[in-house]
Amino acid sequence: MPIADAIREALGSASLIRKMFEEGNQLKKQYGIDKVFDFSLGNPDIEPPPAFHRVFTKLAREDKKGSHGYMPNGGYHEVREALAAKVSREQGITLEGSHIIMAAGAAGGLNVVLKAVLNPGDEVIVSRPYFMEYRAYTGNHGGRLLEADALPDFNLDVSAIAARLSEKTAAVIINSPHNPTGRVYPSETIAALAGALQTHGKRCGRLPYLVADEPYREIAYNRIQVPPVLTAYPESLAVNSYSKSLSLPGERIGYIAVSPAIKDMQEVLNALVYTTRTLGFVNAPALMQRIVAELTFARVDVEVYARRRDSFKQVLDEAGIIYAEPEGAFYLFCRVPGGDDRAFVSHLKEHRILGVPGSGFAAPGWVRFAYCVDEKIIQASGGAFKKAMETWKF
Amino acid sequence: MPIADAIREALGSASLIRKMFEEGNQLKKQYGIDKVFDFSLGNPDIEPPPAFHRVFTKLAREDKKGSHGYMPNGGYHEVREALAAKVSREQGITLEGSHIIMAAGAAGGLNVVLKAVLNPGDEVIVSRPYFMEYRAYTGNHGGRLLEADALPDFNLDVSAIAARLSEKTAAVIINSPHNPTGRVYPSETIAALAGALQTHGKRCGRLPYLVADEPYREIAYNRIQVPPVLTAYPESLAVNSYSKSLSLPGERIGYIAVSPAIKDMQEVLNALVYTTRTLGFVNAPALMQRIVAELTFARVDVEVYARRRDSFKQVLDEAGIIYAEPEGAFYLFCRVPGGDDRAFVSHLKEHRILGVPGSGFAAPGWVRFAYCVDEKIIQASGGAFKKAMETWKF
Repeated sequence: MPIADAIREALGSASLIRKMFEEGNQLKKQYGIDKVFDFSLGNPDIEPPPAFHRVFTKLAREDKKGSHGYMPNGGYHEVREALAAKVSREQGITLEGSHIIMAAGAAGGLNVVLKAVLNPGDEVIVSRPYFMEYRAYTGNHGGRLLEADALPDFNLDVSAIAARLSEKTAAVIINSPHNPTGRVYPSETIAALAGALQTHGKRCGRLPYLVADEPYREIAYNRIQVPPVLTAYPESLAVNSYSKSLSLPGERIGYIAVSPAIKDMQEVLNALVYTTRTLGFVNAPALMQRIVAELTFARVDVEVYARRRDSFKQVLDEAGIIYAEPEGAFYLFCRVPGGDDRAFVSHLKEHRILGVPGSGFAAPGWVRFAYCVDEKIIQASGGAFKKAMETWKF
Repeated sequence: MPIADAIREALGSASLIRKMFEEGNQLKKQYGIDKVFDFSLGNPDIEPPPAFHRVFTKLAREDKKGSHGYMPNGGYHEVREALAAKVSREQGITLEGSHIIMAAGAAGGLNVVLKAVLNPGDEVIVSRPYFMEYRAYTGNHGGRLLEADALPDFNLDVSAIAARLSEKTAAVIINSPHNPTGRVYPSETIAALAGALQTHGKRCGRLPYLVADEPYREIAYNRIQVPPVLTAYPESLAVNSYSKSLSLPGERIGYIAVSPAIKDMQEVLNALVYTTRTLGFVNAPALMQRIVAELTFARVDVEVYARRRDSFKQVLDEAGIIYAEPEGAFYLFCRVPGGDDRAFVSHLKEHRILGVPGSGFAAPGWVRFAYCVDEKIIQASGGAFKKAMETWKF
């Protein structure tokens, strides 16, 4: 018996990122783990902050009666209250606990949102380059993904997005700080996008949702404040996770925050709770819910990422590689001399450097290096980068 | 902006079980928690076994570097190996670690399986009565659910299932021990079903998958062994969770076990890993994976449930309520005198007894009582049941 046709097709063009992950493991077996400069995967190597360990061991010691049982599908009441206070601070708007739905990470949260709002054939717009899982998530729930090219500096091109709006547009997904470019969208850009959506909504009678995928919200540099989205546009939802801010990607914990100004509030909340249940998440993992509720002021030390970013920029500068200036997240998105990103990534591999071709983000001609790895590895990669550039023919 | 039409429709006929849950909370606020006989929800009140607490605190104390990070989407290698040994014992067949995909509970596992195998318009067959979330899970991935009536004793009616097989049949889902009836399907029934699927497959060229939903596998009484499914039919998958066997429903941890005899093995495994990733689960929660790997011989004390079952049977016998003899799980499925299950459930509520109408399992005329509640509450409900029956007019 076969598998579904659509899945077989997708497997054929398997995730470039995951492919790099496997090839990286192969190289490490061959040469030793410290002889490979692996910048392929966004898997934070910084440990969760000490406060995490404190709360984790405290809750384990207590192990209260009933603490691993079912709770309402949207999450524990008190956890949602605690996160509402956190999101209210971040977004500069007052949320109540009911506006928070706990989710199994941002990937879980995005699927829950899209399942809740997409009618068959509805469209979702993203700015290119983008995290290509958005395509799968949209397809899962009968939607169609449309790409709008970003501006040359990777800021949103609001007019390109506006040109793709139609009565079929159910949602626009934005991601800031941005994977893979590190761009943080300024508040004027968010405001311009909100304006375009409002204008479109008035014309066609359907206001698209603005879905902000914000797992990197707390990883920003040079004191940049990541502008709020929930204040900018009433029909907005922010999806977040603790994968990066607390370095907990394996634990699958995050949340959906619904703008308190959203129309059809009760229906939207009911739909999110329903799709959380019926997509099989049932609820976000109980223990991690209770842990993150006590850690609303904790986060990993962003200075560590800032130092790595600076080291990596120096390495690239010395090798003559051009990159977009990252304002947040932990990626350097670099221009491939000559433009053939897959060939360049293969060439780098010969020098034991691993990155992800821009094609993996619908942006051929670029390559992504993740710097959530030890600073020593970044510094040690300098020679390899230079040699790779000297021998790169295009 | 509205939500998806299909979701709005589904919300209109909101889960009867969850509705009872909310009404129960209301009653408890009104009369006090110990004055309400709440048998509505399958939320185990038995705490996880002491071994769970031991491993939990041990892992929290250690909190090893990298232990909350990403791992392969199918789960930790060593966890899959440990569970393969467990499932091999249970199913009497040798599985390797690669045959196990870690899942976010059985609900997550079922969605992953259905997404992996369903083509648009494909059909899934279930035996009625059934856990009605199957309908949502199937619909999520473009499939259509067909019901085949069970036999009067709630055993599978293999010929009724066979009559619904067609070239569109992608899967048959069975659930044993069974929610809501407590039935355990004997090995002859499993063999007969396997035979019918084989015959059908030879005739039409498509062998349907047999998906065994087994969260209650370890909750069986009177030394009944729940027969294996993976040995009975090559194209089979067993989906399991630790929600009942370790009382961890809030933690969302379980697994998919693929028959080592399955055709297209590599493709099936790749598809399950892919849908785990793209449905947004990404992976089963990391910490709980490592905990259950160390608990392959632990389970809650089933004798506690056995005593409650016996107490509850006595209560029902004395009230003159007829029920199906439960061989596993923790439900009593009872015939409603006169047949109007919704009216009966409303009537019971006046006596502060909460159950779920059989209509919630596509079986009007019945009512389900869950006995995963304190034995004292069961015993104390005797008077209320008697009074309710004396005043029940139909």
